[in-house]
Amino acid sequence: MLGVDGYLGWATALHLSQAGHDVVGIDSLVRRRWDRECGTQSLIPIKAMPKRVSLWNQLTGRTIGWRQMDLRDARAVTELVQEVQPDALIHFAEQRSAPFSMIDLEHAALTQVNNLVGTLNLLFALRDYAPRAHLIKLGTMGEYGTPNIDIEEGFLTITHNGRQDRLPFPMQPGSFYHLSKLHDSHNIQFACRIWGLRATDLHQGVVYGNHTDEVALHPGLATRFDYDAIWGTVLNRFCIQGALGLPLTVYGKGGQTRGFLDIRDTVACVRLALEHPAAEGEYRVFNQFTEQFSVKALAEKVRAARAVHGLDTNIVHLANPRVEREEHYYNAKHQKLLDLGLRPHYLGDTLIESVIETVERNASRVDPVELEQPNVDWRRGGTAGWGKAAAESAAEAEPQPVLVLSSSRRRRRPSPRAAAARLAQ
Amino acid sequence: MLGVDGYLGWATALHLSQAGHDVVGIDSLVRRRWDRECGTQSLIPIKAMPKRVSLWNQLTGRTIGWRQMDLRDARAVTELVQEVQPDALIHFAEQRSAPFSMIDLEHAALTQVNNLVGTLNLLFALRDYAPRAHLIKLGTMGEYGTPNIDIEEGFLTITHNGRQDRLPFPMQPGSFYHLSKLHDSHNIQFACRIWGLRATDLHQGVVYGNHTDEVALHPGLATRFDYDAIWGTVLNRFCIQGALGLPLTVYGKGGQTRGFLDIRDTVACVRLALEHPAAEGEYRVFNQFTEQFSVKALAEKVRAARAVHGLDTNIVHLANPRVEREEHYYNAKHQKLLDLGLRPHYLGDTLIESVIETVERNASRVDPVELEQPNVDWRRGGTAGWGKAAAESAAEAEPQPVLVLSSSRRRRRPSPRAAAARLAQ
Repeated sequence: MLGVDGYLGWATALHLSQAGHDVVGIDSLVRRRWDRECGTQSLIPIKAMPKRVSLWNQLTGRTIGWRQMDLRDARAVTELVQEVQPDALIHFAEQRSAPFSMIDLEHAALTQVNNLVGTLNLLFALRDYAPRAHLIKLGTMGEYGTPNIDIEEGFLTITHNGRQDRLPFPMQPGSFYHLSKLHDSHNIQFACRIWGLRATDLHQGVVYGNHTDEVALHPGLATRFDYDAIWGTVLNRFCIQGALGLPLTVYGKGGQTRGFLDIRDTVACVRLALEHPAAEGEYRVFNQFTEQFSVKALAEKVRAARAVHGLDTNIVHLANPRVEREEHYYNAKHQKLLDLGLRPHYLGDTLIESVIETVERNASRVDPVELEQPNVDWRRGGTAGWGKAAAESAAEAEPQPVLVLSSSRRRRRPSPRAAAARLAQ
Repeated sequence: MLGVDGYLGWATALHLSQAGHDVVGIDSLVRRRWDRECGTQSLIPIKAMPKRVSLWNQLTGRTIGWRQMDLRDARAVTELVQEVQPDALIHFAEQRSAPFSMIDLEHAALTQVNNLVGTLNLLFALRDYAPRAHLIKLGTMGEYGTPNIDIEEGFLTITHNGRQDRLPFPMQPGSFYHLSKLHDSHNIQFACRIWGLRATDLHQGVVYGNHTDEVALHPGLATRFDYDAIWGTVLNRFCIQGALGLPLTVYGKGGQTRGFLDIRDTVACVRLALEHPAAEGEYRVFNQFTEQFSVKALAEKVRAARAVHGLDTNIVHLANPRVEREEHYYNAKHQKLLDLGLRPHYLGDTLIESVIETVERNASRVDPVELEQPNVDWRRGGTAGWGKAAAESAAEAEPQPVLVLSSSRRRRRPSPRAAAARLAQ
């Protein structure tokens, strides 16, 4: 389990451990460093890795081996694979934020080099020391972009000038992060072809929620929950905004449609892929999501969940910081995991309400500035002060009106006291 | 002109300078370092950059600005673009050998990181300091692989389940090098879409020949000519083998079909792209080759050219070190450069004979070991001693029979004296 300290990596490791698999968890902990760089933090407090795995052991009697390691270290990766002789490698250990990759050149190059080099290191280690192991790689539905035809699972049979071939689906990723996943996909597919490796590329949709059966066992097993403009995903952000009585901020027209899934389905999908491995030399793609929604429709769902309790919710449209189609055709297939036995948790009011409750329990940790204007623009990069917040907080700690939806792109970071005051308004 | 010290970069710089363009030439000179690492060298001696540009100035009165710089240095790239304010950037400055990228993990990662980071640095510098400049990027026909349908120029109109879209052509590159070019293509296409940059991606075939009108002006203006298993291309290798009376070594069945072009057409194509720039926000692909041949057919052409002079030529088939289809459909379009006015130099006996003459003039520089077995295998990587040759030359300087086509993959480097003796046999 590579990337075991992440939002999905931790939840997946617990799920597989609970299911009886022997799990070794690897992480460089860089995600926690990036939090410090970006001035962001998980809404839900998370424990240090040694504490988490030891708590898991106390609660369940099961062991997750924990090792701190950077996948960019080729020698360490080689030694790991040689020593552990894994049946499968589950690879979540990549920089996974699109806005982070769009901050500037440094973050774009960091994202692509980090992700490509880590995956290349794994591929060569597999070739040399565990050629029969199954690589399960977290990709993204964002590799496809938004073509005007149905999206198939990785491949498409194309007829052209009277001839036919089954070819990789044409891809149009929408950020340097999404591009890094596409580059990985091509490298992995090539390695399967020439070295006979076996790989499953999970083209995952946008994940929401923060509870799985295992995470829910104990508060100390919590997985991270991001809501800010760099690391957060859209439904999580809407739930937090809803819980705080803030307007839901839709980027642009909100017709952007994507595949979504519950975190409980993420961990189930990985287990299904693991327990039904790819064949020797096979590179296969599973589209890993359960439903597709437009951003606008998601905002309406959150509004409806609150209306049941007699609460009003405003929806506001912000200038879209991304360059993307805001009204488009979208019909992506996602049959293969269902065929393997996935039983989806569809998005319902219950989920939205449970997330809202989680937010309310952790309201003191919400930084309202993170819920304002997005701080990375696809055209211009990180807006002024996107990551300098921590250093500047003292100087800019004046109280601000709570609903700051101004057109200013300058980012302000209130002191904890000021933030609390704003939340209490 | 980025990569001005290379085989095509130098010839292109002279051609554009002669045509009246103001050329600034950039190179890190890493290609010469890689020659030392691999124990390879250009068949034709080439001058140091300062000597070449000063000779060009003496002969023509025209100036090529020369600067040594590594594209991986983001600050240097930014300052260059800011200072020069180019109308166009012609980007040949990448690691360009498929076998080099397949030696081992280190060379695979070096190739992808070097090529991606250099190109990302350029894209951001263009966005910030020269957004109207035209990026002309050397890609490769190898990005397409060998699909069972006609290959179009970069894009394909696909009808699927009753809907239609014009999408990037599905790609299946055949080495970590070819993959790096595909990754670049995706990054560049994205930058054009979100930042409005203009780019032409030249998906070039395999180049042969070593003379252009400008290079031919003076021996001191020669461009490099590679024939070894790492840097050489197939027709150049056959011509050298033919000139020395050695068998032509075909990898596998020889049905591998690719696009080819004369170096004179390379320089003309770049000029045509330069003088007919892409529109703002446009990412376009030109398939840059003039004819397609199978490897076997090329060997037959060399044999026929020698037969005219009453010379016999053997053709031998070696185990294919690459993983590729050896018999396949191949029909790649290449209309766009013809539409812009390209007048191709088709491959004829004259070209083959002129290359053979060049070889004969430089026969003393041929290392016959380089013409033996390929020393990088797609499955296993660099075979024993692929790059350790220089250090071992003294110990292994015993004379060898000239036609070493043994099954041993061990690489031997004869002393210069032994090599001369072998050639004289």
